[in-house]
Amino acid sequence: MKLLEERILRDGIVKSSEILKVDSFINHQIDPVLLKEMAGEWKRLYSDCQVDKILTIEASGIGVACFTALAFGVPALFAKKVRTANLSGDVYTARVQSFTAGREYDIMVARQYLHEGEHILIIDDFLARGAAMRGLVSLCGQAGAIVEGAGVCIEKAFQNGGNDLRAEGLRIEALAKIESMSVENGIKFC
Amino acid sequence: MKLLEERILRDGIVKSSEILKVDSFINHQIDPVLLKEMAGEWKRLYSDCQVDKILTIEASGIGVACFTALAFGVPALFAKKVRTANLSGDVYTARVQSFTAGREYDIMVARQYLHEGEHILIIDDFLARGAAMRGLVSLCGQAGAIVEGAGVCIEKAFQNGGNDLRAEGLRIEALAKIESMSVENGIKFC
Repeated sequence: MKLLEERILRDGIVKSSEILKVDSFINHQIDPVLLKEMAGEWKRLYSDCQVDKILTIEASGIGVACFTALAFGVPALFAKKVRTANLSGDVYTARVQSFTAGREYDIMVARQYLHEGEHILIIDDFLARGAAMRGLVSLCGQAGAIVEGAGVCIEKAFQNGGNDLRAEGLRIEALAKIESMSVENGIKFC
Repeated sequence: MKLLEERILRDGIVKSSEILKVDSFINHQIDPVLLKEMAGEWKRLYSDCQVDKILTIEASGIGVACFTALAFGVPALFAKKVRTANLSGDVYTARVQSFTAGREYDIMVARQYLHEGEHILIIDDFLARGAAMRGLVSLCGQAGAIVEGAGVCIEKAFQNGGNDLRAEGLRIEALAKIESMSVENGIKFC
């Protein structure tokens, strides 16, 4: 998506060959017009699919998931991050290994909001090694929900999470796909 | 706001005289149409004010803040909750006492996204004792930003945070104001 790529080139900050900061327009400060445009793009890309609900993960996925939910005319649901395993039986949970934060955490959704046979589109801001995405897919699997696909704003393709997940059969629509990046040479899109 | 009050009566769950669950449409699962309507209402209520940025707090404020930002045509900024005091000098921070969670935490925003003289509208899902709201007002004060007012979806008026903050001069527009509630007798709006 040209609009997003141009914005990343203009306002994104490459901190290292692995870390891209987009917190001036996606992650901390949010440009709602850009998010709405991205939502419209997923609506177009997934127009051939039944989508009953948008699933995302707190916190930075929530904004873009809300606009996508509005575009599809369905509810959004965000998985919560919990630090304890002390959860009631009324939730689905998955363990996620965060490489950025260097720790593991659990994510959860209440069982009553994810149903068997429900068609789910997963939305998130970043896809890198795919750990959070695998957690969200796992929550859907536990519920017997059907994952139609995923939409991510930015895929760091060189970290292979997307390729691995596609090889396992997950459809992923990344609106900006980064082939490589470095502080010296900037960003190269796929 | 009649639409929100009706929705609370229909789908909200009174867990005790202090706790109202709205996680089927605001807090966990999100109804984007309702959030957009609420955003439009704040746009109407604050039409006499200059608003340069929407400030909220993760996680459940983000969705409604994004729609409000779109309605005003300005960016949204969400304060992050951090568990450590180990922060760099590039952020404004405030300590928040959470009564629901029974603990204290710090919130932060990057200094580069909150500026002196910037006109801020604070948006959040709940206002109870006002601890989070005071934290957000403090962040604005540290930056020299001007708080035009606050918009909250639901004010638990019986917990007095709103009244205290109004007495201190903060304009607050609550779209549903609960006078009292109980498991036996349900919800009474102001």
